[in-house]
Amino acid sequence: MAKKNQYGLILAGGRGTRFWPRSRRSNPKQILRLFSGQSLIQETVGRLRPVIPPERIWVLTNERLRTEIARQLPDVPRRQILAEPDQRNTAPCLGMAAHILHSLDPDAVLGVFPADHRIAKPAGFRRLLPPAFRAAAEGCIVVIGIQPLWPETGYGYVEFPRDVQPGSLEPIQVLRFREKPDLRTAKRFLAAKHYFWNAGMFFWRADVFLEALRHLQPKMAVILGALPPYSDRRFGALLKENFSLCENISVDYAVLERARNVVGLAAGDIGWTDLGSWNAIYEALPRGPEGNVSRSDAVFIDSGGNYVDAPQKLVALVGVRDLVVVDTADGLLVAARTRSQRVSDVVKLLEARKRQDLL
Amino acid sequence: MAKKNQYGLILAGGRGTRFWPRSRRSNPKQILRLFSGQSLIQETVGRLRPVIPPERIWVLTNERLRTEIARQLPDVPRRQILAEPDQRNTAPCLGMAAHILHSLDPDAVLGVFPADHRIAKPAGFRRLLPPAFRAAAEGCIVVIGIQPLWPETGYGYVEFPRDVQPGSLEPIQVLRFREKPDLRTAKRFLAAKHYFWNAGMFFWRADVFLEALRHLQPKMAVILGALPPYSDRRFGALLKENFSLCENISVDYAVLERARNVVGLAAGDIGWTDLGSWNAIYEALPRGPEGNVSRSDAVFIDSGGNYVDAPQKLVALVGVRDLVVVDTADGLLVAARTRSQRVSDVVKLLEARKRQDLL
Repeated sequence: MAKKNQYGLILAGGRGTRFWPRSRRSNPKQILRLFSGQSLIQETVGRLRPVIPPERIWVLTNERLRTEIARQLPDVPRRQILAEPDQRNTAPCLGMAAHILHSLDPDAVLGVFPADHRIAKPAGFRRLLPPAFRAAAEGCIVVIGIQPLWPETGYGYVEFPRDVQPGSLEPIQVLRFREKPDLRTAKRFLAAKHYFWNAGMFFWRADVFLEALRHLQPKMAVILGALPPYSDRRFGALLKENFSLCENISVDYAVLERARNVVGLAAGDIGWTDLGSWNAIYEALPRGPEGNVSRSDAVFIDSGGNYVDAPQKLVALVGVRDLVVVDTADGLLVAARTRSQRVSDVVKLLEARKRQDLL
Repeated sequence: MAKKNQYGLILAGGRGTRFWPRSRRSNPKQILRLFSGQSLIQETVGRLRPVIPPERIWVLTNERLRTEIARQLPDVPRRQILAEPDQRNTAPCLGMAAHILHSLDPDAVLGVFPADHRIAKPAGFRRLLPPAFRAAAEGCIVVIGIQPLWPETGYGYVEFPRDVQPGSLEPIQVLRFREKPDLRTAKRFLAAKHYFWNAGMFFWRADVFLEALRHLQPKMAVILGALPPYSDRRFGALLKENFSLCENISVDYAVLERARNVVGLAAGDIGWTDLGSWNAIYEALPRGPEGNVSRSDAVFIDSGGNYVDAPQKLVALVGVRDLVVVDTADGLLVAARTRSQRVSDVVKLLEARKRQDLL
């Protein structure tokens, strides 16, 4: 069990447009049961539980999802499920969280975990937590790098020194952050063996993060610094009044890429995936005959490599390969599996058509 | 208007397994609204109406469909909608009809029309009826040949003499019936220009057909000949008792291919199709951008040549070509369009799994 000043901060504000029609604004990826009987946010909190108990879990989400998340996480105190007043990016959101936690516990050390990723080997993941929290307690900003298994172009990368040892659990200097590469660069990263996937998991002391903001994002630091402590009954109203003044910027650009005290843990294979598309869900699940993955009652005739999710009915596939078929009461998706990242274009089109009912 | 002794006999007992999930045992192709606001059987009766009024239309179907067909054809007297007591093939069924009509009108001349075909040019079709009925009244068995437009392997063919003139409206000798050919043979038929598609439409005098049965199917003729007239109140019970004794055989094998007095009308292009698959439906409908045909609210992203029928929801297609997507409350089909004739295999599989709810 971790120390009492170690907190888990779950990032659960995502919209998950790439999982239409299953995901909607009111039902995004993090609260879907995509794998087990548990939603991704329940799995996220569950795999932290042996290290960080629910009473030290905080959730960052939006007003629309707050009630459902509270329902799915009954052990997490309701006042620790925070709704951002306005859709901003991760920097203001994490600044707000640092402010709140610091006002409650000046020694607070935060671990930041996206609610919509999957980790197939949770024990391997948990071995990373003590050294990460330790380095953070010592004043570092800590990121987790995952040893790449293929030349993924959909992830950002962390560049470590050449002598990095995957799985060593020793914090190591981060040379650079690299944005999503093209395929050629991704192949070079894979071959070089010292570029790691940026898993979007971070660790820092609340006061260290607030200090970094004062240095790197002074305007944002002033806005957040003017807020009263979380226990103050004016907190909610003042947050609502001022939060939207913060710049819409990710923590990566705002802080990580520019801070001095950034170190990383180079993880080995912990079965991590950010589940960026229906194809990623397909890849993460065990396959049946002919490489089909079916979450429904299905009949396959001369069909292989397909992902089928249509719990309300029988699905028959005839003579088709590598499709994603996802059926809901009001929306049906049929997509080429390898192009399933373009499902977000469906959502854009529905927005343009003002089909609020389907968003 | 035709003579008073001319009757239309609609064959509407088909199960339409190739149109799953839209078609079911209780909802086969002939009663579906596949094109217009009208079902195929309504279209069939409608295009006969200028020649044969509803009071001289008779329908051959089964017990399961009788009520729905009566509902769809309110102008057809209810006692003229006949349910075969047992699923036999077309020969016993047409023998029963000939017996019934002959018992009511000894001069009856019957035109037999499948309920589940489409004819895009009904005026051209109707021009065939007077010469066909005339040749039948003179004692011939008359078939309709349709000039082929492509080397179709899914149809039977009628071989005429080489000097046949499509659209001439002159009855001409039928040399041979040819079963569904392989592609090479079908191409030869198309090039030879004197092989015509067998449209499954026939004309004969009731007494001529009964005489042909006595000669070619003596056992069946005895069974049917022992029935009382249709007006006799014992008719239904005796039919039920004896009908299943008839051989399960098509009228093509039982009579047409072996009778002497068979002639044909060589029709030109009357826009006829037997709608044997979802692909045939796709081919028969006007196409939208990228060759997509949608009967639903649909979004196409980088997708072409698809047929979409999902009236209850929005369908999004992403990066897919030449698919058939048909959605119902309890069944969803996704098939390669050119292999949609294999949809009947889905029904066979569901039968093997005893999924009566989906049949």
